[in-house]
Parts: sequence; structure tokens; C-alpha cells
Amino acid sequence: MSERRLRILLVGASGTLGRAVEAELSQRHDVIAAGRNSGNIRIDLTDVASIQRALKQAGELDAVVGATGNVTFAPLADFKPAAFGESLHTLGITDKLLGQVNLALAARDHLRDGGSITLTTGILSEQPIVAGSSASLVNGAVEAFVRAAAIELPRRLRINVVSPNVLTEAMPAYAPFFRGFEPVSAARAALAFSRSVEGAQTGQVYKVF
Amino acid sequence: MSERRLRILLVGASGTLGRAVEAELSQRHDVIAAGRNSGNIRIDLTDVASIQRALKQAGELDAVVGATGNVTFAPLADFKPAAFGESLHTLGITDKLLGQVNLALAARDHLRDGGSITLTTGILSEQPIVAGSSASLVNGAVEAFVRAAAIELPRRLRINVVSPNVLTEAMPAYAPFFRGFEPVSAARAALAFSRSVEGAQTGQVYKVF
Repeated sequence: MSERRLRILLVGASGTLGRAVEAELSQRHDVIAAGRNSGNIRIDLTDVASIQRALKQAGELDAVVGATGNVTFAPLADFKPAAFGESLHTLGITDKLLGQVNLALAARDHLRDGGSITLTTGILSEQPIVAGSSASLVNGAVEAFVRAAAIELPRRLRINVVSPNVLTEAMPAYAPFFRGFEPVSAARAALAFSRSVEGAQTGQVYKVF
Repeated sequence: MSERRLRILLVGASGTLGRAVEAELSQRHDVIAAGRNSGNIRIDLTDVASIQRALKQAGELDAVVGATGNVTFAPLADFKPAAFGESLHTLGITDKLLGQVNLALAARDHLRDGGSITLTTGILSEQPIVAGSSASLVNGAVEAFVRAAAIELPRRLRINVVSPNVLTEAMPAYAPFFRGFEPVSAARAALAFSRSVEGAQTGQVYKVF
């Protein structure tokens, strides 16, 4: 089976997960690395103009992958009732949630016919940890959005999301928050991105846990 | 078995679902009806000061129930990449998502020990419909938040969410969007609110579908 070489924009390419996704996909495809402070293309998902500029700079694309997203980790007791902008949920909603949704919506308007969008969440949408309520909220939102967007995308475009367990590489820093969780290597999580980009499914949450 | 009479604040009491919840719970408990434009107490979930005022006005409470929440229904094609405030997701995030999260956080600080919080989502978190991507996003966010908040609430407080199918009473208006969905009566959905308020579980998504 001869596979077509794809042009893939990878946002968050310098992160632990992003590097593994690049290592996996660049074996067979042209991966354009993008990031806030690194990569061939600079992109800030919290800035719509930056997303549009990055896509234009990338040129024709078969796939857009988001492997980045910030949220605030804090004990629930620290979360006070607060308006958007003053809430501890603001970072997660602006960055990992709306940032990824906006990346997907911009990709929808930019990708070649039949192209794919792959976003990233994490196990906290299903399995909560202490201090992780905002991450759970954001991950749950992105996963439900992906299921819904999949049935309305035009031009045979596809959209999926990868939800990994805590990464092995992150355990030195995060282990106390993830006791009893079974870490997965970034390389193993990267396989799910390959399944999304190089497969044919849409509306899927690829759980790597 | 003699049951204790509970004091319950019901937000959205005048809606189709809220009226059924009131009919169910008021048989055995004191239900204080609250709403944006009706009820004994006025409350606007998009206004934190209004939430705090309503709780203060309600006095001691054993349960807070949210049976309301607005989101924008629009084809995915109408959703453009846009910053918060300009995005079509703004209403849903501000109202049904952060509004309910803020209600829960304020209730956490106000409820009697062992009290309960019950929020509302809907089937779209799992089963999408055309034009429902923002509702899916918001419902997914609230459900994941509830699972996470449950493990951190103090004072034996509980939190759950009820996710009903489309309501029978709403079908005259919504049927074209929900073809093939099996409507449930508001009275049947109200039983799940009873299960949450009068039961002992926490972190549950009570699916009424």
C-alpha cells in the first residue's frame, strides 16, 4: 500500500507530546513545527489573528494537529464564583478550550478537502484528580465539541481528539497528583495522533489509557 | 422511614424542567423557586453578585438545583474563529457553563453540611445534533467539572448533574433537530433530580436517556 505524503501543521511541536508526535509522523510526512516560542511557524492559540497568520504561512495542509494547551491547576477551594476574566477557569477556557476550538474552526476553512484536525485533551475528563477541576472541565468541553463538530464539517474533513493518560515523561513533576495512574510514554500517545491523521475515522476520542 | 424535610433552592423554577422538578420535590420538601424573571427569588447565573444575593436571601439550604442555562444553537459553519466575547460560544460559556459552575461554587460556601448541588446538562454531550456544537461543548464541560468537583467538596457536600434527553414538552419546537431521539417527559427527568437531592451519591451524571 503506497501512502500519500501529507503536509501536517503541528502546533505545540516543542512540548513533550509534540516532539513524540513529530517523531512519529515525520517518518512518513512533512511536519511543519509550530509553537508559541519555537518552531518554523509561531502561533499563539489565544490569539485568533496569530492562528490565521500561521495557517496562511503554512500553506496547503492535509492535517492540523494541536498538541498544546494550558489550564490552571488549583484546589477547588481556591476557585471562587467569578465572572469570566476573573475566574481561575479563564486560562483553561481561553487557551486549551477556545484556543483549540478556534484552531479547529480556522483549520476547517483552510485544510485541503478530506483533511483532518486532531486536538488534545487528557484522562482528567473522565478520571478526576485533586486540583484538576479546571482541566477536567476543559477536556470534557473539547471532547464533546469534537463529537459534535465531526457531524457538521464540510468537504469530508475529519476531527478527532487524543486523550492520553499522564505522560511517563511528566511523572517526575506530576507524580504526586497522579498516584495510581498508569503513565503512558509520549511515543505511545503519539500513535493515537497517527491513527487520527492517517486513519479515516471522525468524531473519535482516542483514549490512551 | 421518616425523611427529613429539606430546604431546596431551585434555579429555573419557571421552565418546563423546573416546574416538573418543583412538582416532584415540593411533595416532600420546601422548594424555594428562583429565576431570572420569576420566582420568589430573582437570580441571574451570569451575574456573580446576583447568585450571592439569591443564596443569602434564601437563607439556610440543604440543596441547590440548577435547572436552567442558555446556549447558542447555530450551524457549525456560522462559528468563526473568534476571541471570547466575539465567539458564538460566548453565551453558552457565560451562561450554562460558568453560570452553573459559579452557582455550584457559591453553593459550596453556603449549603448546610452534607448538602447537595445538582446541575443540568443534556444528551448532546454524548449524542450530537446539527447546530448543537456549542451545547455539546458546554454540557461536556459541566459534566466533567461535576465529576472533578465531587472529589474536592468539603463538609460532605455532594454534586451531581442530570442529563436528560430532549423533553417531550419541547418537541413541538425542537422536533426537527431531534429526529430519532426518544423524548422524555419533564416529570421523568425530574425523578433524576430527586435521586440527586434525596439520594447519597456524588460525582454522578444521571442520564435520562
